[in-house]
Amino acid sequence: MNAIITLTTDFGHKDHYVGAVKGRLLSENRDFIIVDISHDIDLFNVQEASYVIESAYANFPKGTVHVIGVDCEKTAFNRHVVMLWQDQYFIAADNGVLSFLTHKYQPEKLYEINIHHRYDEDTSAMDILLIVASHLAKGGNLDVIGRPIKALKEIIVPQANVAADNSALYGQVIYTDNYGNCITNITKNQVRDVAKGRDFYVSFGTKKIGRIHKNYSDFEVENEEVLKTREGNVLALFNSTQHLEIAIYKANPKTIGGAKSLLGLTQGSAVRVTFFEPLKKEPQF
Amino acid sequence: MNAIITLTTDFGHKDHYVGAVKGRLLSENRDFIIVDISHDIDLFNVQEASYVIESAYANFPKGTVHVIGVDCEKTAFNRHVVMLWQDQYFIAADNGVLSFLTHKYQPEKLYEINIHHRYDEDTSAMDILLIVASHLAKGGNLDVIGRPIKALKEIIVPQANVAADNSALYGQVIYTDNYGNCITNITKNQVRDVAKGRDFYVSFGTKKIGRIHKNYSDFEVENEEVLKTREGNVLALFNSTQHLEIAIYKANPKTIGGAKSLLGLTQGSAVRVTFFEPLKKEPQF
Amino acid sequence: MNAIITLTTDFGHKDHYVGAVKGRLLSENRDFIIVDISHDIDLFNVQEASYVIESAYANFPKGTVHVIGVDCEKTAFNRHVVMLWQDQYFIAADNGVLSFLTHKYQPEKLYEINIHHRYDEDTSAMDILLIVASHLAKGGNLDVIGRPIKALKEIIVPQANVAADNSALYGQVIYTDNYGNCITNITKNQVRDVAKGRDFYVSFGTKKIGRIHKNYSDFEVENEEVLKTREGNVLALFNSTQHLEIAIYKANPKTIGGAKSLLGLTQGSAVRVTFFEPLKKEPQF
Repeated sequence: MNAIITLTTDFGHKDHYVGAVKGRLLSENRDFIIVDISHDIDLFNVQEASYVIESAYANFPKGTVHVIGVDCEKTAFNRHVVMLWQDQYFIAADNGVLSFLTHKYQPEKLYEINIHHRYDEDTSAMDILLIVASHLAKGGNLDVIGRPIKALKEIIVPQANVAADNSALYGQVIYTDNYGNCITNITKNQVRDVAKGRDFYVSFGTKKIGRIHKNYSDFEVENEEVLKTREGNVLALFNSTQHLEIAIYKANPKTIGGAKSLLGLTQGSAVRVTFFEPLKKEPQF
Repeated sequence: MNAIITLTTDFGHKDHYVGAVKGRLLSENRDFIIVDISHDIDLFNVQEASYVIESAYANFPKGTVHVIGVDCEKTAFNRHVVMLWQDQYFIAADNGVLSFLTHKYQPEKLYEINIHHRYDEDTSAMDILLIVASHLAKGGNLDVIGRPIKALKEIIVPQANVAADNSALYGQVIYTDNYGNCITNITKNQVRDVAKGRDFYVSFGTKKIGRIHKNYSDFEVENEEVLKTREGNVLALFNSTQHLEIAIYKANPKTIGGAKSLLGLTQGSAVRVTFFEPLKKEPQF
Repeated sequence: MNAIITLTTDFGHKDHYVGAVKGRLLSENRDFIIVDISHDIDLFNVQEASYVIESAYANFPKGTVHVIGVDCEKTAFNRHVVMLWQDQYFIAADNGVLSFLTHKYQPEKLYEINIHHRYDEDTSAMDILLIVASHLAKGGNLDVIGRPIKALKEIIVPQANVAADNSALYGQVIYTDNYGNCITNITKNQVRDVAKGRDFYVSFGTKKIGRIHKNYSDFEVENEEVLKTREGNVLALFNSTQHLEIAIYKANPKTIGGAKSLLGLTQGSAVRVTFFEPLKKEPQF
């Protein structure tokens, strides 16, 4: 069965970098199935790379090898690591990009890559990650390319917090997508766990949203013309990775703007979920 | 024989969306050949998606499955449909994106997808289209995933019109490409049918073009230096999909500008083909 | 063994052009492995295409077929050519894009493509290049699609020059990458050959750099916090293709700027390597 290798980098699409990576992998084995997840991560933005790989991995079959080429130079403070986690491999620099995963579940295996001395000084960091990727994609053993380690470098990733009296969840925007919609670090599971059946509303700045959409078009309207008048409406929903998202219906960041520009939301902006007392069944606004 | 599945979306290249789609398809069958047609369709721009898929499909072999992920949420007014047309499958929302095809030929088969109730509420519109794509790519039967319908939703796509006295064709710009060149809805066949051997010129605004180029470099010049002086010249030709195109020779929208910016043409701008009376053999200008 | 075909074009990612090319190739043989090197070459910029394909090819296995779709219309002054070089095929217009390769080594085989008359007038230049690519990828013979020629059109590609007294190397910026870093036409081998063991410094404008980094993060610092303070520092290194590169550590052209914008370097800017006399072992600044 042909192995799948995915690529998540900040290489962009113009230079030869991505083509060179694929040439190298295919030189190892032209049966590799190489999938681009993203090459447009903001340069050196580890948090953004984290969100993208976290959102993508679950769609891939067991045994998939994910290479993350963002801020991946090896330094005295940045080891190269490979992790077997939920039956998939992740190869990256230990710069925090994988911390989000190990916050959820323990890795099945965690290794520091220690093969650098076998290659000459012109061998780049990405070259090493690709050698490891090829090795694993061919069914190779982790022990050949590294040594077991206990833990990844601890990085403080902003988490959504629960108010002491359980009256609210405090989160923040972690990513803005192609549609200008703003994804937060508040998840559906967290809201459900804290809500315990209570109603709630979502707020940020002076804006309150009393209803969670099932999908973007989820407006109660009689016909298509009325639905069209909803374009530009602000809404909240749980996206495909179950993150709470603030969106504008059919906005376009390239023309009239998206949730990011129209609502002034940016990476780090506070978003809150406030829960009602049990007896109040409906939002009061 | 491995099945080919193409993707045409407005997902962009930065987010995890395209990677996730490929992961899902490869989880179904890693022998699928997945081809990106475009992920940079203007957001929710069904007319642009139409032009792109119309221009691309004929290059693919019979049995290819085309998934169109533009404005594809299922609503009370937007069914999900699958069409067998010219021996290729097209899977999309019934939002007009396929109308251009059925204006040319009747579909061989046309089905409304009706499997949504089998999946939980977190299943997105795109998920459903991908399930259908996998099913068809594996050789599955249409009857398993939908029910036959008579027709697509009728969408008024702007068509080029013939003057009552056959003296002209009135069309408009429908797309601007990477080179800034402006493609119209006037086709070579239409011009030939109306011309019936007559000469003609192309015009827009105050500009007239008396000659159709065979290709962009089709200038009568003695040497390469003279050809270079033609850069910036306005010309008209029939492009690879036989649409009349207004172009500027070697223009660059990112630097000096292209046909769109330099000539003030935009989506919807009027372009006319005027035919000469039979006896006048040459354009008079 | 499945053949590999790479694509280097200025087609961009939005239009149907790249999808159409892949559809055509897969119609010939769906076992072809098609790899995008770049579709974002500056429009008609042959020098940029040269740099990208020169930087990418060495990563691919023998027998790979490279198609270069930049300024590829056939004219009276621009033949279509195919070259076997270092056991790989290169198919392009004879517009100078391949000259950089033949400056290094003689081609093993060099042919002018002469099959155009077999196809109708709607067959585009790119179509012809793809027909040849398919033919070669299937193991076809060069004699079937062309006739041997002696040499490519001679194009003056700017080369780095050695000062008459061997005291310096004069080069220039030839490409700016996704990180805003500026790649020059001075190579590691040239510097080594001229240096003959002497120390040297790199300069441009009023800036001097006395040390070559092994990689971008190659600063002597005690801890990660100090390393962070080096962000924004100007440095020089030999990149993965052994070209001298002027970089800014962790700069971002989309936010604070890169080497190009912050240092005023652009395509053609002069960069110099100055060699010290043998007895002076260290740069004096």
